[in-house]
Amino acid sequence: MLRPPLTPIATALPDTVPFVGPEAIERQNGIKIRARVGANESPFGPSPKVVAAMRESAPNTWKYCDPENFDLRVALARHLGVGPEKLAIGEGIDGLMNLMVRLYVAPGATALTSLGAYPTFNYHVAGFGGRLLTVPYEGDRESLAGLLDAVRRESPPLVYLCNPDNPMGTWWDAGEISRFIDALPETTMLLLDEAYGETAPTGVLPPLDVCRPNVIRTRTFSKAYGLAGIRCGYAIGEASAIRAFDRVRNHFGVNRMAQVSAQAALTDQSYLRSVVARVAEGRERIARIARNNNLAAIASATNFVAVDCGRDGAYALAVLKALAARGVFVRKPMAPILDRCIRISVGLPEELDIVAEELPGALRDALA
Amino acid sequence: MLRPPLTPIATALPDTVPFVGPEAIERQNGIKIRARVGANESPFGPSPKVVAAMRESAPNTWKYCDPENFDLRVALARHLGVGPEKLAIGEGIDGLMNLMVRLYVAPGATALTSLGAYPTFNYHVAGFGGRLLTVPYEGDRESLAGLLDAVRRESPPLVYLCNPDNPMGTWWDAGEISRFIDALPETTMLLLDEAYGETAPTGVLPPLDVCRPNVIRTRTFSKAYGLAGIRCGYAIGEASAIRAFDRVRNHFGVNRMAQVSAQAALTDQSYLRSVVARVAEGRERIARIARNNNLAAIASATNFVAVDCGRDGAYALAVLKALAARGVFVRKPMAPILDRCIRISVGLPEELDIVAEELPGALRDALA
Repeated sequence: MLRPPLTPIATALPDTVPFVGPEAIERQNGIKIRARVGANESPFGPSPKVVAAMRESAPNTWKYCDPENFDLRVALARHLGVGPEKLAIGEGIDGLMNLMVRLYVAPGATALTSLGAYPTFNYHVAGFGGRLLTVPYEGDRESLAGLLDAVRRESPPLVYLCNPDNPMGTWWDAGEISRFIDALPETTMLLLDEAYGETAPTGVLPPLDVCRPNVIRTRTFSKAYGLAGIRCGYAIGEASAIRAFDRVRNHFGVNRMAQVSAQAALTDQSYLRSVVARVAEGRERIARIARNNNLAAIASATNFVAVDCGRDGAYALAVLKALAARGVFVRKPMAPILDRCIRISVGLPEELDIVAEELPGALRDALA
Repeated sequence: MLRPPLTPIATALPDTVPFVGPEAIERQNGIKIRARVGANESPFGPSPKVVAAMRESAPNTWKYCDPENFDLRVALARHLGVGPEKLAIGEGIDGLMNLMVRLYVAPGATALTSLGAYPTFNYHVAGFGGRLLTVPYEGDRESLAGLLDAVRRESPPLVYLCNPDNPMGTWWDAGEISRFIDALPETTMLLLDEAYGETAPTGVLPPLDVCRPNVIRTRTFSKAYGLAGIRCGYAIGEASAIRAFDRVRNHFGVNRMAQVSAQAALTDQSYLRSVVARVAEGRERIARIARNNNLAAIASATNFVAVDCGRDGAYALAVLKALAARGVFVRKPMAPILDRCIRISVGLPEELDIVAEELPGALRDALA
């Protein structure tokens, strides 16, 4: 039977669901997840002020959102000390990333990232027919020198860098990031993903510079702010680079509840600080659990810890599967060298109790 | 100063905000909107059950949504009597429309619509470098014969048809739509937008046929279900056409609150029926207001009524502006012939009171 042909780019893409959520794992395994510590969510949840604002605004959900995201941009502008014209709001960083690739990577053009870095970037590059170029990590960090070499060699229109990094949790200091930015050609756009910026120590995020047309920084309400499910991220950059999003974004795409809850979240910075402190405690707890099992925890500036399982990728994958069978949901890097690790998100203390309880057995199972 | 170049397609696009929301109008005019009857929202709001479900789930918003939208697809499948593999969920129909254009319209390829139909389709076609082909309306309806002629002449990979129609509110009966579908070549995909399906009389929506690979129908929780701000639409079609969305969609794009509230909305069909009845009353009220001002109301199967202002487009635009100055937010078609109308959404009775009060003055102002 004849059918409407997909475009050549779409034809070349797989029609599988590339991102498997914990709900899908539960459906597949038939095992209830008791410790949801795989998606770098914040189990501490959003601020009570956010919950109250969401509840209050629920009856207003009949209204479309403001397509200009005006109030949220003004609130963020005040919070960050930049003008609202330097900010774009999107359906999570994933949504903004889609737009960045679409704006800068023409079919066949190159997009540069690190081998094993955030896979959604790769998904979008493939989705728009770009050519993905990768540079290996160096000592469990994205390699600034390696990325810069590749930029000089290939002049890609777009480079992706996540600092602090996902999936390893490692980071570069602000000065090193700034030098990297200075060394980029003016015609290469850097997508600097700071999704985990709130949990990083002081001195990791470079000061905001909204004059450079070749750097867009992305941040989110999904991580420390505890709002992964509401889909709200933002981009910070030079005004005309920010304006470019208006060419292609879904103008009514950011939902009204996201606008409301993100604004409420910004008003409760003391709650954010308490979460950041609990995340730091959770990272230490995960490191202790690792040590108690003779495993090394990689130092992390994020809300998760990569734990080196001490053998190869197949072993770490077996550990992940054994944990899943015991009701513990974690994820893991898949690229060579990084793949020796599993990635454990900071859960509630009682979830980390379950991790502590189940990890020894899972390590044994994985050897069997 | 050098800067990163946008792709050729993005370079050709304007970086204006093409969709002006009522909030932006208020900010520009400094006049508070007293009757929000321009965006085809449902001021009756969502069901109280939906509001309760949203409030209950607010603290869970720290979790990412299920990327497979499994529970919502199962609930919709039961409601519609089709398998869940025949359904895709998106960030409103706008989001799904973006994906449809991206999947089927390669740069330079043709997408067919009616001149003056839903502008977001045109926005996406331009956004992906497609060539927009339009056919004029015929007697205030999208012209099925005209669209079919254009399909035969130009073999576009994608055709857009909205039934009942926006912005005119007119419709074709199910039999006529079915004959149109039968006459389409198998290699032309029809995006049949049924955003206003719930408010249409029986006999307007053809029975669901999820075997044809060249028809995708879209529906939404934004209109009769009163959830425009939550961003949740869905596509119904043949399984492999539906699976194609998985190639390009933002898998975590549909927010968790949308999943929760859409499921709750489906459980309260008696509330939906009460809204549909109130919408019908509102349409009659708008028609009476039009008649009282010696204007013709165009018969509508939607939650709005196009009112023929009896002169040219410039006059109708002046009426719209005069209404805005009086705190009444309406929109209007902009294409020739249709542009003689303003489009009034069914508001609350007290909002339609304001319309009744302000329209005579606005008509006078527009003449001045």
